[in-house]
Amino acid sequence: MEETFVPLRGIKNDLRGRLLCYKQDWTSGFKAGFRILAPTTYIFFASAIPVISFGEQLERNTDGVLTAVQTLASTAICGIIHSIIGGQPLLILGVAEPTVIMYTFMFDFVKDRSDLGRHRFLAWTGWVCVWTAGLLFLLSILGACSIINRFTRVAGELFGLLIAMLFMQQAIKGLVEEFRIPHNENPNLTQFIPSWRFANGMFALVLSFGLLFTALQSRKARSWRYGTGWLRSFIADYGVPLMVLIWTGVSYIPTGDVPKGIPRRLFSPNPWSPGAYENWTDMLDVPVVYIIGAFIPATMIAVLYYFDHSVASQLAQQKEFNLRKPSSYHYDLLLLGFLTLLCGLIGVPPANGVIPQSPMHTKSLATLKHQLLRNRLVTTARKSISKNASLGQLYGNMQEAYQQMQTPLFYQEPSTRGLNELKESTVQAATCSGNIDAPFDETLFDIEKEIDDLLPVEVKEQRLSNLLQATMVGGCVAAMPILKKIPTSVLWGYFAFMAIESLPGNQFWERILLLFTAPSRRYKVLKQKHATFVETVPFKTIAIFTVFQTIYLLICFGLTWVPIAGVMFPLMIMLLVPVRQYLLPKFFKGAHLYDLDAAEYEEAPALPFNLATETELGHGASYEGEGEIFDEVITRSRGEFRHTSSPKITSSTSTPANDPRSHLSPRLSSSPHLGELRGERSPRARGNEPHSPMTGIGRSPLNPSPS
Amino acid sequence: MEETFVPLRGIKNDLRGRLLCYKQDWTSGFKAGFRILAPTTYIFFASAIPVISFGEQLERNTDGVLTAVQTLASTAICGIIHSIIGGQPLLILGVAEPTVIMYTFMFDFVKDRSDLGRHRFLAWTGWVCVWTAGLLFLLSILGACSIINRFTRVAGELFGLLIAMLFMQQAIKGLVEEFRIPHNENPNLTQFIPSWRFANGMFALVLSFGLLFTALQSRKARSWRYGTGWLRSFIADYGVPLMVLIWTGVSYIPTGDVPKGIPRRLFSPNPWSPGAYENWTDMLDVPVVYIIGAFIPATMIAVLYYFDHSVASQLAQQKEFNLRKPSSYHYDLLLLGFLTLLCGLIGVPPANGVIPQSPMHTKSLATLKHQLLRNRLVTTARKSISKNASLGQLYGNMQEAYQQMQTPLFYQEPSTRGLNELKESTVQAATCSGNIDAPFDETLFDIEKEIDDLLPVEVKEQRLSNLLQATMVGGCVAAMPILKKIPTSVLWGYFAFMAIESLPGNQFWERILLLFTAPSRRYKVLKQKHATFVETVPFKTIAIFTVFQTIYLLICFGLTWVPIAGVMFPLMIMLLVPVRQYLLPKFFKGAHLYDLDAAEYEEAPALPFNLATETELGHGASYEGEGEIFDEVITRSRGEFRHTSSPKITSSTSTPANDPRSHLSPRLSSSPHLGELRGERSPRARGNEPHSPMTGIGRSPLNPSPS
Repeated sequence: MEETFVPLRGIKNDLRGRLLCYKQDWTSGFKAGFRILAPTTYIFFASAIPVISFGEQLERNTDGVLTAVQTLASTAICGIIHSIIGGQPLLILGVAEPTVIMYTFMFDFVKDRSDLGRHRFLAWTGWVCVWTAGLLFLLSILGACSIINRFTRVAGELFGLLIAMLFMQQAIKGLVEEFRIPHNENPNLTQFIPSWRFANGMFALVLSFGLLFTALQSRKARSWRYGTGWLRSFIADYGVPLMVLIWTGVSYIPTGDVPKGIPRRLFSPNPWSPGAYENWTDMLDVPVVYIIGAFIPATMIAVLYYFDHSVASQLAQQKEFNLRKPSSYHYDLLLLGFLTLLCGLIGVPPANGVIPQSPMHTKSLATLKHQLLRNRLVTTARKSISKNASLGQLYGNMQEAYQQMQTPLFYQEPSTRGLNELKESTVQAATCSGNIDAPFDETLFDIEKEIDDLLPVEVKEQRLSNLLQATMVGGCVAAMPILKKIPTSVLWGYFAFMAIESLPGNQFWERILLLFTAPSRRYKVLKQKHATFVETVPFKTIAIFTVFQTIYLLICFGLTWVPIAGVMFPLMIMLLVPVRQYLLPKFFKGAHLYDLDAAEYEEAPALPFNLATETELGHGASYEGEGEIFDEVITRSRGEFRHTSSPKITSSTSTPANDPRSHLSPRLSSSPHLGELRGERSPRARGNEPHSPMTGIGRSPLNPSPS
Repeated sequence: MEETFVPLRGIKNDLRGRLLCYKQDWTSGFKAGFRILAPTTYIFFASAIPVISFGEQLERNTDGVLTAVQTLASTAICGIIHSIIGGQPLLILGVAEPTVIMYTFMFDFVKDRSDLGRHRFLAWTGWVCVWTAGLLFLLSILGACSIINRFTRVAGELFGLLIAMLFMQQAIKGLVEEFRIPHNENPNLTQFIPSWRFANGMFALVLSFGLLFTALQSRKARSWRYGTGWLRSFIADYGVPLMVLIWTGVSYIPTGDVPKGIPRRLFSPNPWSPGAYENWTDMLDVPVVYIIGAFIPATMIAVLYYFDHSVASQLAQQKEFNLRKPSSYHYDLLLLGFLTLLCGLIGVPPANGVIPQSPMHTKSLATLKHQLLRNRLVTTARKSISKNASLGQLYGNMQEAYQQMQTPLFYQEPSTRGLNELKESTVQAATCSGNIDAPFDETLFDIEKEIDDLLPVEVKEQRLSNLLQATMVGGCVAAMPILKKIPTSVLWGYFAFMAIESLPGNQFWERILLLFTAPSRRYKVLKQKHATFVETVPFKTIAIFTVFQTIYLLICFGLTWVPIAGVMFPLMIMLLVPVRQYLLPKFFKGAHLYDLDAAEYEEAPALPFNLATETELGHGASYEGEGEIFDEVITRSRGEFRHTSSPKITSSTSTPANDPRSHLSPRLSSSPHLGELRGERSPRARGNEPHSPMTGIGRSPLNPSPS
């Protein structure tokens, strides 16, 4: 995206781009059929559960002025509007933890003012929303989002980790609360005598750890060894909601003497009480000085939303997802302004683009698209084979089927990425057995496996899943009597689950882990799929960079704890953008920063990179099959090209067989820091290299390193 | 062992063999220094905790006649005597679950007889022990143990799994009990009101699952990526006792309102009450008809002990441990007779050889020996290198050091197994770089890694660890006030841990898992270290064999539940020996049975086996380093040769580099059932094979199978 600040140009561009594919956004969604329900329910839970529990948190922090009903309503209204008239439909909107923190700060300010007080809190925040909306309009019209490329990995990932910390903090706080008497409750009830409180706390530990553990396991179901394929898929797709259901069921097992209040369950008032959603009537009663004063928190919230919304959108549209529809940062920010205004007027906390739900949404849609493509191609291939088609015909048919599945965007050339590789591979197989026109022999070719490996990462880009999940969140408001059956402890487990799920792929997190990795074990990182910096940046530089980032993170986290002044924490995160651009280059080499942070506005020397070695290094993972590789690719990667093991890579490298060194990557062998990462072992290990020609194996199995 | 039934010959042979190495049994133990404490504490906990909880179980089942004090005393006395004058010091003695079951059956019989009753229970079991001892003497003198080779894998593993089921049953039963009012307790105490009972149960769930989970994780510490090497080793060596300590600590966290009895802790009476250990004085009061009748349970117990003792000893001396000192089945059975007599006279339940503690003991000693050898050789190598020694000298020095570490048994040739391989590898490295007499360059050679891979599995065979652990068990009797601090729920978690720890390496268990493996995932089994039968026996045959064995297991397990008649369950297990020998060959092919059961008395056609392929198949695992491979070898294997990835295998196979097919194993390629196991994928996948010469890689990364 060019950095242009001509008023309205960004919005116009966004609208033009998205309007072109608007119809397709809907047709494509409906074409997916029932399978769309997998990503929908996955995101619905990821969206609704935090919103409910943020609502409970707000209720505690605002003396019951705001509750889960309001947060759910806001999330549903904003989500539905955004999914229909928003720009980027991959973006998920919701009331987020930073909003809760800001509202808590504001309530603490308001409650002690005699001329405002608890009963005018919503009216005052209505004014804050008005100001925030105005600022967001301004930012959006002036093209502030065109500097989105300056929101680099370092800022985005720090924010992501901050959110993960806030989620984990909520999980721990929640569990500790289970041992105490809840606020606003009659402490003389049976369930609050010490013995039942203790029992409730222990039960909560069981339920939340049970949910956390099983939910984490269920996400790996696709690579389980046991059970039939459909069962594994079902568990992987719907495992998390399933586990919420199961553990809610478990919470009903203890009967008899156990009082009704154990375990504690969700609590929420009647959503349809009189006066709800009519905040604007009170707003005129706010004294003028406070209307003006509302500008101060409004700037903070505007900065927060500008950053949060854009980064969530950015993370949902990372490069390796190979999205084919355009982005829409400016227009979405404009719409967010309107949504904030609306929320302010009806007296609910505003929703904005959320992390980690937005990237989770894209990932789940990539899985969906992969399954759809795979099923179609396998069917086509099987049909061709049953008709005794030749290899050429088989390829033709598959090519055709693939094209039909492609998004027909008339302003763009149809992509043939994946299929060209397939052709290469099939033709090569045929050449070797010398029968390109002979009837195709299925024994020569494992179709499912080939297709799995060849299909590029593609995303089912559509609006339906977003609309459905937002509607379901809205349904929660009506379904509160059912939702009330969920124990709060299951919620805390789910929070921990979300925090943990958001970690893989976050390079900041991976670098923190690297710091704690024993030097002698660092070579293991190289054996897995890994980011470029692991090979190109000296360990010391990685360490300093990571420590700096960690301290910055801890300051941001600490700020959220400071009363009133904590309202500044969005500034701190925003500040990271200039720090990254102007300060860091003074301490780190450009090439290192490029690899650690991969900012697009910086130039970095292109390094030759031969993928054959990566294929070999990732050898162990290359037989997984049935979407496991794929799972790993989309789970572990974020914002960086990943080295998948696909046969085209192997076959396109025509290195002579008798030189074992020839398939070593030039980058790997020439990298000066690789040895360092591998600990002391590597340099010595080279001595065994000369064995290889005798054994016919490229590397001795003893040597972790090919260099 | 030859099958000879000449009276006393077996005992004489055993005594002769063990006496030759008796002195070395002690010196070798003391030479190991402090490190002997790692296997000692590991086995001490594995031995003491079940014995304590079996004691609690007996106390419940025998109305308090027998308690943990008696089971501990029996285990300690028998253990100390066996470790000093026993034959095979690797064998661990203890009061086992089958003994508890038999004693429970006997108590149920005795308590309702007016002429015996509760107070003459011990006197009567004294007579049972007398008869049992007599039968054991007879069996031992007549050489019954020479048919030990007929106790094949099928019987041993079934028994192992039965024990695992009994352990798991105890864990579950124990946890359920935590929610109930314990027997013999005042139900009006605070901790037994419904709320505190429920709280106690939930707390028990937290503690036991916490222990189970962390203990299982700690055993894998050696392969952790984080933390320093010594910390990882320490956790792997002492993790389980450490976790018992930690979770006992956690159990003390709740204070304040929580009554003292929560969580429940071990309970045991004063071990030094008058009359304890003087059972013989009462034995003469038993009516004669019951003295004679005692012969019936005695036969069952004798059969049980004969089987259990021999199988435990056999499992502790499996082939792949490469033990160098002789076995001692006959003499140990004779000694067991004396020990049973002693226990009967002093009125404690007898101890016998226990599973899984005995094989656990050998495994932990193998780890110890490996560490000792490794440290010594690495030091030697480093010293040589610092003196600028040539490769030849280096090898000489290491060879010398290795010899010094070898058990100097004068009746046996010193072994040079491991070091010959090292020589081959170093000389080869030198030849290739052309400098065998040049000063040794450490950069050419990763010593620690080489040594790790080259060292054969060897066991520190000595008596000290057994003596120490038995003494520590004895110390528990005196340390009851400290032991009482351990929550019972931690015990239940430990039971589950023991059950799970005993599963890997049990081929019966692995075959059960194979039945539940989706056909499309079966190829994954081949990617790991696996038993021979996976490749050579058709899946259907494996399935039928496993289902038969499972039904047999369930019948045995069911029998332990049947009142009184359940006393027959040892017969059922013993019966498996003739069933295996005479019945099974009628339903299964000899070669299949051989691979599934590997009985030594049957002949099977020798299959050629080229290890180079295995080296490649096990490729992924070959970089683990620092004892991880080794851990896997000794953890996963039982009674079957394992394919380790060591360089001698690679270097001794001089296949030409330009033929990628040449390092395929003849056995693998010719095996008719391999394709079947790999699911449908394998045969088709062959089509890609022709790529390989172009890429210089033996196999296309797409193909899981090298054939």
